[in-house]
Amino acid sequence: MAAGETGAGVVASHKEPMIVFMPSGKRGRFPRGTAVLDAARSLGVDIDSVCGGRALCGRCQVEVADGNFAKHGISSSAANITPAGEAEHRFRERRGLDQVRRLSCQARVETDVVVDVPASSQVHRQVVRKPNEDHDITINPVVHPYFVEVPAPTLDEAHGDLERLGNALRTEWGLEGLRCEPTVVRDLQGALAAGKRQVTVAVRNGDRIIAVWPGFRDTLYGVAFDVGSTTVAAHLCELASGKVVASAGRMNPQIRFGEDLMSRVSYIMLNPGGEDRLIDVVRHAMNELIGEIAGEAGIDVAAIVEITIVGNPIMQHLVLGISPVELGTAPFALATDSSVDLRAADIGIAINPGGYAYALPCIAGHVGADAAGVLLAEAPQRHEGVSLVVDVGTNAELLLGNAERLLAASSPTGPAFEGAQISGGQRAAPGAIERVRIDKDTHEPRFKVIGCDLWSDDPAFADDVQQVTGICGSGIIEVVAEMFLAGILGADGKIVAPVSARVIEDGRTRSYVLHDGNPAIHITQNDVRAIQLAKAALHAGAKLLMEHFGTDRVDRIRLAGAFGAHIDVTYAMVLGLIPECDLEHVSSAGNAAGTGARIALLDRASRIEIEQQVRAVVKIETAVEPRFQEYFVAAMAIPGGAHPAAGETRQRRGRRSKRRD
Amino acid sequence: MAAGETGAGVVASHKEPMIVFMPSGKRGRFPRGTAVLDAARSLGVDIDSVCGGRALCGRCQVEVADGNFAKHGISSSAANITPAGEAEHRFRERRGLDQVRRLSCQARVETDVVVDVPASSQVHRQVVRKPNEDHDITINPVVHPYFVEVPAPTLDEAHGDLERLGNALRTEWGLEGLRCEPTVVRDLQGALAAGKRQVTVAVRNGDRIIAVWPGFRDTLYGVAFDVGSTTVAAHLCELASGKVVASAGRMNPQIRFGEDLMSRVSYIMLNPGGEDRLIDVVRHAMNELIGEIAGEAGIDVAAIVEITIVGNPIMQHLVLGISPVELGTAPFALATDSSVDLRAADIGIAINPGGYAYALPCIAGHVGADAAGVLLAEAPQRHEGVSLVVDVGTNAELLLGNAERLLAASSPTGPAFEGAQISGGQRAAPGAIERVRIDKDTHEPRFKVIGCDLWSDDPAFADDVQQVTGICGSGIIEVVAEMFLAGILGADGKIVAPVSARVIEDGRTRSYVLHDGNPAIHITQNDVRAIQLAKAALHAGAKLLMEHFGTDRVDRIRLAGAFGAHIDVTYAMVLGLIPECDLEHVSSAGNAAGTGARIALLDRASRIEIEQQVRAVVKIETAVEPRFQEYFVAAMAIPGGAHPAAGETRQRRGRRSKRRD
Repeated sequence: MAAGETGAGVVASHKEPMIVFMPSGKRGRFPRGTAVLDAARSLGVDIDSVCGGRALCGRCQVEVADGNFAKHGISSSAANITPAGEAEHRFRERRGLDQVRRLSCQARVETDVVVDVPASSQVHRQVVRKPNEDHDITINPVVHPYFVEVPAPTLDEAHGDLERLGNALRTEWGLEGLRCEPTVVRDLQGALAAGKRQVTVAVRNGDRIIAVWPGFRDTLYGVAFDVGSTTVAAHLCELASGKVVASAGRMNPQIRFGEDLMSRVSYIMLNPGGEDRLIDVVRHAMNELIGEIAGEAGIDVAAIVEITIVGNPIMQHLVLGISPVELGTAPFALATDSSVDLRAADIGIAINPGGYAYALPCIAGHVGADAAGVLLAEAPQRHEGVSLVVDVGTNAELLLGNAERLLAASSPTGPAFEGAQISGGQRAAPGAIERVRIDKDTHEPRFKVIGCDLWSDDPAFADDVQQVTGICGSGIIEVVAEMFLAGILGADGKIVAPVSARVIEDGRTRSYVLHDGNPAIHITQNDVRAIQLAKAALHAGAKLLMEHFGTDRVDRIRLAGAFGAHIDVTYAMVLGLIPECDLEHVSSAGNAAGTGARIALLDRASRIEIEQQVRAVVKIETAVEPRFQEYFVAAMAIPGGAHPAAGETRQRRGRRSKRRD
Repeated sequence: MAAGETGAGVVASHKEPMIVFMPSGKRGRFPRGTAVLDAARSLGVDIDSVCGGRALCGRCQVEVADGNFAKHGISSSAANITPAGEAEHRFRERRGLDQVRRLSCQARVETDVVVDVPASSQVHRQVVRKPNEDHDITINPVVHPYFVEVPAPTLDEAHGDLERLGNALRTEWGLEGLRCEPTVVRDLQGALAAGKRQVTVAVRNGDRIIAVWPGFRDTLYGVAFDVGSTTVAAHLCELASGKVVASAGRMNPQIRFGEDLMSRVSYIMLNPGGEDRLIDVVRHAMNELIGEIAGEAGIDVAAIVEITIVGNPIMQHLVLGISPVELGTAPFALATDSSVDLRAADIGIAINPGGYAYALPCIAGHVGADAAGVLLAEAPQRHEGVSLVVDVGTNAELLLGNAERLLAASSPTGPAFEGAQISGGQRAAPGAIERVRIDKDTHEPRFKVIGCDLWSDDPAFADDVQQVTGICGSGIIEVVAEMFLAGILGADGKIVAPVSARVIEDGRTRSYVLHDGNPAIHITQNDVRAIQLAKAALHAGAKLLMEHFGTDRVDRIRLAGAFGAHIDVTYAMVLGLIPECDLEHVSSAGNAAGTGARIALLDRASRIEIEQQVRAVVKIETAVEPRFQEYFVAAMAIPGGAHPAAGETRQRRGRRSKRRD
């Protein structure tokens, strides 16, 4: 139909109107009366459509450029295309349409014209990043809805309705060789009857019909899951726009089988069939989250056609129904280090019955799909210089590299940074101490708790805070660093200050009295040791990666997860948690694993990208590296002379040591 | 490794021993010590193996030819290969091995040798046909087991066990790019642990791992289902040998929702959710049959990895979980006329959890996958001349054609031929009259009943037969034909004989007293009409196909199903059920639909074949053909002057009429 100038071997009539599409600049001549959408399609201009030119979906909106375009020799104005007809007016009344916008399926070219395709009308577009996120998300939908009208059967031909649907999708949309889910075969005739032969189908990856609905439906949804040991979070996204329409989180109900991962694996080893219980409860929580976010957004669960999953290796295995016992003991063998793509129903997740689940690949036995999500979200390979990305949970996952090379490792920090195994420790929740300052002379502390903006030495503090319940990860790091800066701790981590109102002795061991309430919050010598062990493991892991990479400094550090969001990086540097780096290049990455799940949900191409990257990542197993032990022992001490302003000095020392190596 | 003469660009050393494989004649030179199996593989000789050369499966047996082979210049004898070693002796003790047979994976070539590959050692082979079957079945397994040893994981590499399995299958078996079922990912590590890193996997269609077992397992099974409205039959087959190891059948429990198909469809239309009940009960019956045949064969249900299904369109839809309501009213639209290939679990069939179901395609709204099975089993296109294949159930399905062209139609015979809607009618079961003779002078009948070899006029008959319960399809055809031959019926089907001991009158209508017991079995005028209508429909359907094909005679007729197996073709011809044909070329095809299901189970290529054929078949819809009504009316009469010897005369008349056309 269209005689595009860009078309090969097509003889263009120069009397036919020219259409130039902006911003792509694609142009061609088409017979008068050609729909702008058809012209765009034949030129390969990216304009979305669900209804196939029936003025129903409003996805194909364009604007006619106004003015003289000397470059193209076109004087363009709204009059150069046909005025809006009845169908377009109906759409404008029903759904609303900006005055300058036209539906390109209805607008027909009259004479030479320049047409702007706004970003929101493109199938492929960018979603602007949120704070902390490293880059915009590209929209490249995994599932796309197509509205079609399927001819009614007649006695004269014996085809099935599925074959008639296939023909309609070929004719109207150019879709060829589609396979289909069994549920679609089951539901098709009912949908055709209910929709008076008009249906909308969801096509996944361009090759498989996964759902069918009667009539017209233009919005499909997906859910990005971040399944942590402690928390399960879900983000409901509109697949076409990338918009997050609802989010929710809840405790991982597996906690009843064990607070930490290893005790859950022990539970499975000790209780036959125990994995089924852990599998069931986590899937149940995921289904409850789906119900919750679908309810919040006011959508039907059947409109959710895709989910993505990131989690640590044990969570990832359990969600997929795989026993994690092999991950409980050396050599920590994954069932698979590939991505897993299956029907959501196969793992008991209740979305549209034909919907799919995509589980990101694990990187190694200790470096999970959550780390793959971080890698996708942070994309250290896109940055100049060497980036270190740290995601601290029960273990710390570390990614180091640049455009040339990426290394990954897991470091056994234990759960001290999350407040576990600390005498007064707790999760980051209202009532937990999160900031601490200690007077260098009096050793008197002041602190802030979550849920209150006041410091504890503010007269109004006692009125505002009902109870100080414990100390969370960021508070522990600050108190230990402040104890060191105030001279209460030596560089070896021993409590050296004389016994006083704040330093007490019980038997042979000393504690620092941080809060004398009920409960009393003391920082014991054991607590300090736990933090030392954790920070030494983290530091040693980073150093080991740096050694393997062949660098003794990193150019930027990104701290992912709740740890990264709450920690004051100055104190992280004081304690030596992370390697030396300009403080201004140390920042929080937010919930990068969850962002990775969202990217994988919205951008088909990102899946191929992460699968390739995960294969290319060099995995360093800290447990078999003798150097890790050396680094670990060396990192036990609190850096000598360290204070918040000491970064610069130590950086220069770092550079010198490189020359020595 | 191998330097085959047939290999392109390989320089062969003429000092290396030559191996010639018979019957293929493939030959090549190989280094001394090459395993005969490896030599065969590198030459593309078809030798089966499951264990991959470990002397476990015994599938790779060969025989060394003895004697001088002048053509090859080889003096061959058992001494030309290495003698059996320990592994082969162990196999011989454990599993038994014919004296002249060797395991080709153990036998290594010493000097020039001729090796016979018996048919039983080939992956692709023929299963000799059973009586009534049209041709041998080719074995071309859909699922093949592969035994592999998967290296243990180490701390040094981060791969998953699935990836290690993939590597092992690539290295040992040359299998590339395998996908896998979610159940395999779930079961793999457990199987690797239980099998001490040795597992057997089932690979489907060469591209998908569908099951995994610990250790070595060499026999996999499939079930061919023939799902009829009345009876569901299942045949358990060894996939590698094609052997039927157990068969069972049972009543279709849907009968409780309606004896015939249309009353079941009515049930669904009248009862919301009714289709789920019909779906559940038929699947339940299929699962019970699986349990029964697996028990009979003494195998684990998990060893069943594939099923195939044939049925009429309504049964096929219900087994697949699709509501058949569209098939209940014109235009009788199929949900799909393609084959359906899905996990057995998706349709609630309990075999190996990764096992698949293949449902043959329906040909048209009234011509089901059972007819496709008949087409596969009968392959009329492979015969010279024009074949007519008739499968009579509630409807008669007709296939007509030759190598050039195939036509199909369904004719609304109703269930009279099955004994339904006949006053004394019943299914073919012990006690039912199946043969009838009537004395032309006395009108006295004699008959035989199923379950007794004696005629009713035999003095011992009364002792042998407990009760005459009714009359089945073949009996009805014979009694009506005999009534006509005895002058009791006129050519128009009216009972014309005077009232007598055997011809009685009740009100305005006459009956023939066939059996005066309890129950009494009378052949009423209505019964005769029902048979006339049925035979007219069948005949008219055949004539319509012949007209469309452009022939007025057929060269052979095959009668499929129970009808074909029990009917005396002479009487079928007397009544004019089937078109004229030499009686010697009219034969029973046995349970051709079930045979088709078995072919589709055992021969991968047959699936592609039937899918193509079904597309190519010309479908004739009797309901929209005005000519059908004409033929139908014309066929109501019983052929004038017809008697068992009249075929020849009528054939000649047929030829003359062709010339007139």
